[in-house]
Amino acid sequence: MKLAELSRLSGIPTATIKYYLREGLLPPGRRVTATQAEYDDGHLRRLRLVRALIQVGRVPVAAAREVLTALEDESLDHNSRLGTAVWALPHTAESAGQDVTQQEEAGRTVDALLARLGWETAAEYGAESPAYRMLVTAVAALTRLGYPCSVDDLAPYARAGGQLAATDLDLIERFDSSDEQLEAAVALTVLYEPVLLSLRRIAQAEESRRRFGQGCPGE
Amino acid sequence: MKLAELSRLSGIPTATIKYYLREGLLPPGRRVTATQAEYDDGHLRRLRLVRALIQVGRVPVAAAREVLTALEDESLDHNSRLGTAVWALPHTAESAGQDVTQQEEAGRTVDALLARLGWETAAEYGAESPAYRMLVTAVAALTRLGYPCSVDDLAPYARAGGQLAATDLDLIERFDSSDEQLEAAVALTVLYEPVLLSLRRIAQAEESRRRFGQGCPGE
Repeated sequence: MKLAELSRLSGIPTATIKYYLREGLLPPGRRVTATQAEYDDGHLRRLRLVRALIQVGRVPVAAAREVLTALEDESLDHNSRLGTAVWALPHTAESAGQDVTQQEEAGRTVDALLARLGWETAAEYGAESPAYRMLVTAVAALTRLGYPCSVDDLAPYARAGGQLAATDLDLIERFDSSDEQLEAAVALTVLYEPVLLSLRRIAQAEESRRRFGQGCPGE
Repeated sequence: MKLAELSRLSGIPTATIKYYLREGLLPPGRRVTATQAEYDDGHLRRLRLVRALIQVGRVPVAAAREVLTALEDESLDHNSRLGTAVWALPHTAESAGQDVTQQEEAGRTVDALLARLGWETAAEYGAESPAYRMLVTAVAALTRLGYPCSVDDLAPYARAGGQLAATDLDLIERFDSSDEQLEAAVALTVLYEPVLLSLRRIAQAEESRRRFGQGCPGE
């Protein structure tokens, strides 16, 4: 298909598509004349992913490029490409204001948690993984502020994370090709984060009502 | 205690505490002389919460003030104060680029999900609640981009949210007084978000390794 058709099917203006092409977020089309290129369904799918990352997930362009490069790295197998792509997704926690001792102590708590769960991958990659660093930073913040975050406190959240990951992978395995699965993994990781956080808050209100009631005395 | 002692115990510089006082994030101390005020454990706890919101949760000052005001509103009962405070927490989703039809369709999906779960509070407050709006926006984005987000797809995430909320409330009920519980509810909602999201990503890597293996052919 031509650029105009790609724009129509994706709902993305041609100027934006040209910007994505220039930034290397979308692979170039197959050149047919000096001024025209052909695009295919792969381009359409990729555009959808770029929108999920940049417009919905607010991933910076440079980070998005890193994620997409990992997806295309043919020297890696399926599991490694998936890992590298999700790995490159930016994380939000910041360790500013935490000293080394707090980070180390939090690291020991996290390691004890992972050991208890028998999660080998995380234990193996440890400090190199952004998700691991994000967790250590969050635990250090909880500790510093004096909120509960022992291994026992964290374990139910980890078990919930495990169930969610199984649900995520089930969703991803519905896609046919390996390429589509990889793209869906990255997009669904980002797009389901607000789903999960909002459902937790809604459920809190529900659980609070159940435990504490409507609060009108005598009712 | 004096301001200097409050600063020492909280680890927050006196200049920052004075800023929080000016901004109304911390209630004034009890005046003892023209230039000195006395602070108590309530101030220390409140400082901890302000740090959780502003420094760790990156909640804007105006939104933090709204959350704290709800906590102190004595015209409300425990459950309503909790709800109002968590309600005032900012949410991240944005509905830019979504048209009314997409939002309405997503709203119907969310309503069907809540009805299936029997979550009455959310159904009652509906569109007025930020968490509900955040969920509708996220579902509209998934729909627009063509990713799976039917009621069946969303239900496992909602069930995980329900389990998490029960865990959250268990953690909160460990605090003794009603005031402490309210403050903990707000702080733990914010501080456990990165814990949850990072554990989900770590668990994804673990689950992917289990399903797809190390990927080296012949091993």
